[in-house]
Amino acid sequence: MLRLGGSVIGFESSGSSSASKGESVADTIRIVSSYADVCAIRHPKEGAALVASRHALIPVINAGDGGHQHPTQTLTDLMTIYNVKGRLDRLTIGFCGDLKFGRTVHSLISACVKYHGVSFILVSPRELKLPGYVREEIEAAGAPCAETDNLGETIADMDVLYMTRVQRERFFNEEDYVRLKDTYILNKQKLASARPDLAVMHPLPRVNEISTEIDRDPRALYFKQAEYGCYIRMALIKDLLKEARG
Amino acid sequence: MLRLGGSVIGFESSGSSSASKGESVADTIRIVSSYADVCAIRHPKEGAALVASRHALIPVINAGDGGHQHPTQTLTDLMTIYNVKGRLDRLTIGFCGDLKFGRTVHSLISACVKYHGVSFILVSPRELKLPGYVREEIEAAGAPCAETDNLGETIADMDVLYMTRVQRERFFNEEDYVRLKDTYILNKQKLASARPDLAVMHPLPRVNEISTEIDRDPRALYFKQAEYGCYIRMALIKDLLKEARG
Amino acid sequence: MLRLGGSVIGFESSGSSSASKGESVADTIRIVSSYADVCAIRHPKEGAALVASRHALIPVINAGDGGHQHPTQTLTDLMTIYNVKGRLDRLTIGFCGDLKFGRTVHSLISACVKYHGVSFILVSPRELKLPGYVREEIEAAGAPCAETDNLGETIADMDVLYMTRVQRERFFNEEDYVRLKDTYILNKQKLASARPDLAVMHPLPRVNEISTEIDRDPRALYFKQAEYGCYIRMALIKDLLKEARG
Repeated sequence: MLRLGGSVIGFESSGSSSASKGESVADTIRIVSSYADVCAIRHPKEGAALVASRHALIPVINAGDGGHQHPTQTLTDLMTIYNVKGRLDRLTIGFCGDLKFGRTVHSLISACVKYHGVSFILVSPRELKLPGYVREEIEAAGAPCAETDNLGETIADMDVLYMTRVQRERFFNEEDYVRLKDTYILNKQKLASARPDLAVMHPLPRVNEISTEIDRDPRALYFKQAEYGCYIRMALIKDLLKEARG
Repeated sequence: MLRLGGSVIGFESSGSSSASKGESVADTIRIVSSYADVCAIRHPKEGAALVASRHALIPVINAGDGGHQHPTQTLTDLMTIYNVKGRLDRLTIGFCGDLKFGRTVHSLISACVKYHGVSFILVSPRELKLPGYVREEIEAAGAPCAETDNLGETIADMDVLYMTRVQRERFFNEEDYVRLKDTYILNKQKLASARPDLAVMHPLPRVNEISTEIDRDPRALYFKQAEYGCYIRMALIKDLLKEARG
Repeated sequence: MLRLGGSVIGFESSGSSSASKGESVADTIRIVSSYADVCAIRHPKEGAALVASRHALIPVINAGDGGHQHPTQTLTDLMTIYNVKGRLDRLTIGFCGDLKFGRTVHSLISACVKYHGVSFILVSPRELKLPGYVREEIEAAGAPCAETDNLGETIADMDVLYMTRVQRERFFNEEDYVRLKDTYILNKQKLASARPDLAVMHPLPRVNEISTEIDRDPRALYFKQAEYGCYIRMALIKDLLKEARG
């Protein structure tokens, strides 16, 4: 937004905010509508963005609502894939890491099943497998899908590898976190057996699931991806403002 | 300010701020004077804005100082009343809820007693009655004033009804808060006996003291009021900048 | 930056930030490089700015890295001295207060030893003496240097007096803090024996180490110094942007 010459007003849930005084999302968005031209909402509760959009007088962007979806990240991911592959269909896409809680994974899969000839390879420990309702989207679309717990054996088949962070805050106990966080680390050795045009992506921030030794490999696209995130959000805001102003 | 094409510099009392290092308000405002053209100060201590204005080299706006006054909210409230009623005199204004701690109530009453023919209806539980020093302002002005703990019986006489939130942070114990917070809820049933041109106002955020079922009633002015708050602050800043630059 | 017509993007280490999710400084600065034209980094770890500059694609300003250096404050201090004295050489500079942990002191001494004819008077309690490695810089430069714990006896010899705050957060126990914080307070009485053109400086915020009774003395330069801090940072950013854009 700042790059477009606009300004940003923060309505963060800090100690003295309206939300902490018990204000509803519906009321907050009504007030924000009086002050801003467009609103990006990021909220810990699932469905908050939907509620906001129903009471807003301005366009609302869902910038993440709890464990649900993360649509602007998915737009970024699609743009990154399209830019490097020249297409969004006929791709084998691997997802690796925390597929249970990773909402960027769920969002991207929901988008990818809409394209022809896409197949999926899901790499995760048993405890962090893709939830059933996302699996059903893949099956409903009739897309081929393999589940495995071994990255090294399957990386050679992928056109895209989408790595995810194992988030400490999702775990119920520290032991499970420590045991599982290092299971699926992408390093030089694993990358050696991958295709020369593999696209390695990551929504960032990473912790250690991608070794820094591959940062300079041309297949490492995650920093490029972050840069695209800036452009896609600029484009989205411009588009919404056009619509809002008729 | 942003809408006027300006920028905002935050000097919040976050963990690493100058205030948390023991800096005085007087020193902070001297520094802010070097960086900004106008300053809006919101401070937990009564009198902070006054101290700031004495040491500042730029105009200072009091955006709330502890339990004292809240002048920009009062300007907003007066503008809202004037816009809908066409006058600020000859009005019967009801205040309902927490009249003891609600500084927006105290500020607005101080302003309203200056107009001819204004009378007040104060609706609150005994524990949250208007403080004596504000009562004295009403008496000094010779304005008629009724005190009651029943909203339903008195709403029919009001031209304006100013609702307030019962703030959890003002209570010494949770029991009192729970017992009192729901006492004076404005809903469809109570509004039925009110005048067709009643102006229902609220400084927001509300919790549940105004039922959402009346949000679409034309008498519900609180969202409009919030919008006016943006305009009045823009006007105030413009005026102060004009003055500051001669 | 705002005064130059630009915008500021905050990447603070708040609860939900990337840093708190375990992201490295190297990764963060790569992402920031995609969004911003120049980056000012303030970090609790020594060396963070250096690491950032190695991975950034944009100019990086060190705005303080832990107990190390504070170069933009030092530029401000040099500019202040130069403006009032017309020179940076042939000066007797006193430092008073917490010389052990005060990184602005260490930075400014490192800069001053590069000028001819500069001598130092170090005034501090024994517990807060200048660290050995900074002392060695003074000795390597062959600059005269006196150490004392008495401000009143030495103030008459100074051209510049650089006061510092005794920071509560640097102390291991409250007792030591209370005992030492008031030891070296500059007041009217002490200032009486100083030269008429002494420059009293302070990086601010102050607590009580400079009595407010001397704020209006023409020798009190600390508010002027804070104002210069704004200009020098504007100049620095302009210069870096010129360089960055070729």
